[in-house]
Amino acid sequence: MSNPFFKNNGPFLILDILKTLNINVSDLNENSKINDIKDLYTSNKSDITFFHSKKYKELAQKTKASFCITTESLKNELPLSCVTLIVENVLVSVSKITSMFYPDAVNDKFDDSATYIDETNFKDKVTHGKNVLIGKNVLIGTNCKIGHNTIIEKNVSIGNNCLIGSNTIIRNSLIGNNVKVLDNCVVGKHGFGFFPSKIKNLRYPHIGIVIIEDNCEIGCGSTIDRGSMSNTVIGKNTYLDNQIHIAHNVRVGENSIIAGQVGIAGSSIIGSNVRIGGQAGISGHIKVGNNVEIGGGSGVIKNIPDNTKVMGYPAKNIREFVKDNK
Amino acid sequence: MSNPFFKNNGPFLILDILKTLNINVSDLNENSKINDIKDLYTSNKSDITFFHSKKYKELAQKTKASFCITTESLKNELPLSCVTLIVENVLVSVSKITSMFYPDAVNDKFDDSATYIDETNFKDKVTHGKNVLIGKNVLIGTNCKIGHNTIIEKNVSIGNNCLIGSNTIIRNSLIGNNVKVLDNCVVGKHGFGFFPSKIKNLRYPHIGIVIIEDNCEIGCGSTIDRGSMSNTVIGKNTYLDNQIHIAHNVRVGENSIIAGQVGIAGSSIIGSNVRIGGQAGISGHIKVGNNVEIGGGSGVIKNIPDNTKVMGYPAKNIREFVKDNK
Amino acid sequence: MSNPFFKNNGPFLILDILKTLNINVSDLNENSKINDIKDLYTSNKSDITFFHSKKYKELAQKTKASFCITTESLKNELPLSCVTLIVENVLVSVSKITSMFYPDAVNDKFDDSATYIDETNFKDKVTHGKNVLIGKNVLIGTNCKIGHNTIIEKNVSIGNNCLIGSNTIIRNSLIGNNVKVLDNCVVGKHGFGFFPSKIKNLRYPHIGIVIIEDNCEIGCGSTIDRGSMSNTVIGKNTYLDNQIHIAHNVRVGENSIIAGQVGIAGSSIIGSNVRIGGQAGISGHIKVGNNVEIGGGSGVIKNIPDNTKVMGYPAKNIREFVKDNK
Repeated sequence: MSNPFFKNNGPFLILDILKTLNINVSDLNENSKINDIKDLYTSNKSDITFFHSKKYKELAQKTKASFCITTESLKNELPLSCVTLIVENVLVSVSKITSMFYPDAVNDKFDDSATYIDETNFKDKVTHGKNVLIGKNVLIGTNCKIGHNTIIEKNVSIGNNCLIGSNTIIRNSLIGNNVKVLDNCVVGKHGFGFFPSKIKNLRYPHIGIVIIEDNCEIGCGSTIDRGSMSNTVIGKNTYLDNQIHIAHNVRVGENSIIAGQVGIAGSSIIGSNVRIGGQAGISGHIKVGNNVEIGGGSGVIKNIPDNTKVMGYPAKNIREFVKDNK
Repeated sequence: MSNPFFKNNGPFLILDILKTLNINVSDLNENSKINDIKDLYTSNKSDITFFHSKKYKELAQKTKASFCITTESLKNELPLSCVTLIVENVLVSVSKITSMFYPDAVNDKFDDSATYIDETNFKDKVTHGKNVLIGKNVLIGTNCKIGHNTIIEKNVSIGNNCLIGSNTIIRNSLIGNNVKVLDNCVVGKHGFGFFPSKIKNLRYPHIGIVIIEDNCEIGCGSTIDRGSMSNTVIGKNTYLDNQIHIAHNVRVGENSIIAGQVGIAGSSIIGSNVRIGGQAGISGHIKVGNNVEIGGGSGVIKNIPDNTKVMGYPAKNIREFVKDNK
Repeated sequence: MSNPFFKNNGPFLILDILKTLNINVSDLNENSKINDIKDLYTSNKSDITFFHSKKYKELAQKTKASFCITTESLKNELPLSCVTLIVENVLVSVSKITSMFYPDAVNDKFDDSATYIDETNFKDKVTHGKNVLIGKNVLIGTNCKIGHNTIIEKNVSIGNNCLIGSNTIIRNSLIGNNVKVLDNCVVGKHGFGFFPSKIKNLRYPHIGIVIIEDNCEIGCGSTIDRGSMSNTVIGKNTYLDNQIHIAHNVRVGENSIIAGQVGIAGSSIIGSNVRIGGQAGISGHIKVGNNVEIGGGSGVIKNIPDNTKVMGYPAKNIREFVKDNK
């Protein structure tokens, strides 16, 4: 994943990482520097990675990472070049180490670097309402309009000919050309991802961003969360109606139309040319194919192949739904 | 439809209209002026109208319009006094011509005419919070209160004794007396109406408005879209709870009660004395009668007669629902 | 119920109360002072109470209140020490009298006492964004952050280490330590409680508050209404995702996880360690036990015992749901 926004606080010494994980590795013969934490596939020498499920066995066998957080039962799948760090809960440990490298990606406090647009270089370049705030590391193209009270927090890039409404908040997002984000939206907040724990849940970092491609429209009161280890993407020319919730890591294809109050749970992948009726819900980690129509109010709890019309809760083929409800 | 707010940019010469539609009409012997685009029934001589479905055959036969956008297969229904303009897609063509007459009704950029209330005549007349903005062509009655950060954009009339909350945005709306619009609402934005198109969807104009009649209450975080060719209406003494979405052209009758997170899709007509439970959804172009009760979570996909109780997805008579779910 | 925020405008003379209720009590031999209106159980001598349903017969027989609003058919259940005031509609009458004692609890106009935080003592104590407003009777602990445009209206107490987002509105609420309330929320508004009436509905007072306990997180665009005669409570370490609606008098236990767009209707009680999937709805006056899992999109319309997994609309045991939907 490209990660243009979150500053990597590394490198860290491996001994500091071990300390954070409460691990004693007696036979460690040098205190090497670790550059980054990455997944099994993208990590390189001097990175730390993690391996928490047999599903990823083949990737694990080929990883180039110098260190890997894993469990007793999985450790033998890893190559000899990779030092294994045995923990009880891999994902909790990953969360801790990711927080070391990317502390800003854990908690979303408001951006206190934001200043009034009239005190920035965008003053004359962008048509803007009253009380508009702009954070650090913001790019805005030509012919854009930004409404009253809107806050473009740090780490946002907006293309040309975009209309951003009033009372909207955007952070950690790449927005293409000719995009409309209407009023009262929140785009780029961390997702609802954490490890439940009795005293105090442990949030995991969200180092992903939100990408809204060219010609999209996002309706009033919608929320689009940024990804945790990958990005949340709205494809070209896709239109979202009001009060829609798009969770972290979701990817929606091109030319899709999503009606009011729809919710798409974390990590689901929606194809192109998809139409989703009002108030439908898509569970997490679902794949919806291309050219799919999902009836209003449906609850999608399993994958849907290309070129299918479904409706119902749980969603089924539309012919079956009609037959069952005669 | 009365259309008090959107300025008609016409008249236009018929040759300019033909050019926009890419039509050659060889036998046109004068370049007449066209005043407005209207429906079959309300249009007069020197207006242009449109006819796209056999359903409207009887209206078509009596139209007084000088020109009509229609198709090859429908053109013979129109009177001889009406010159037919044959196109492939009537509604797309109507959208283009309506955009000529009402360019402000296509895109909802924020109202950059809005100024701080303290710089307007409402300064002392209206009890108001900090940072309240007021656009052009706004009327506000006596004894009204408007909360912090709220934006009354152009083309809004508010009656007497109204409470408008904080962080709320209102445009293109007529609001009666004793109305409460709570916090974080968006009222009067264009609806989710457009013609899908692969490269870039084509928005159609929304020249309707939102009418909220006397004694209504609109809950926090609700969105009420204005109509496209007709109005969106909330009848007298109707109460909406939080996070409700009312789409364009919807009409809700009097004395109705709509609980949280309900969504009503475009052009549906809801009667008076109707009660709708939380999270229920009403499909588009549905008629719900008077004195109807719709259970929470229901999905209404067909018309409901007067004096009926329904529940379920799809919604059915409550007795049937109870029997089926014993 | 503890009621720290709403000022009791009493005592009132009983004759003034009778006048408000249009009651003639000929044999009233002294014009005593009434201190407060309370429920049957908590009221004392010199309070007025109410009794509107046989369900509360046992409490009625032991009430210490000097006066009780009730009906002809119930009056004989009350002790001789209690003077009965016979009305047609007990709850409407209670609403009128509660409005006498607590006039501020009926209508939620915006807090016009709120001033910019830079003009208050919190200026240096709280890390804050631009345009933050603070009302009267507000407490904020150490190490708190409050985002841009956020309004902390009167009668709010916030603990230590809290993050409040931007564009959020909070009133009449007690917030613990380490709580996060994200962007665009409305917390503490009156609930959707009123007596329907043809000309103009009659709102009843909401003298309850919202209590958010330690370590909670409330997602973007959520609304949490305060209670009417009791409080709305979110228990310790409970996490709410985006666009959730929690109605008045709802109580959610500890360590619970509620996904996006869930709605919980008035007066329902949710246990601890409960997980609720996205878009699920809970009807009003429902009891959900501890350690319950409710699948996404479910509609819960009856009580759910401890340690149960349910799904569906209406929600049923998960095994039954899976079997029925093979």
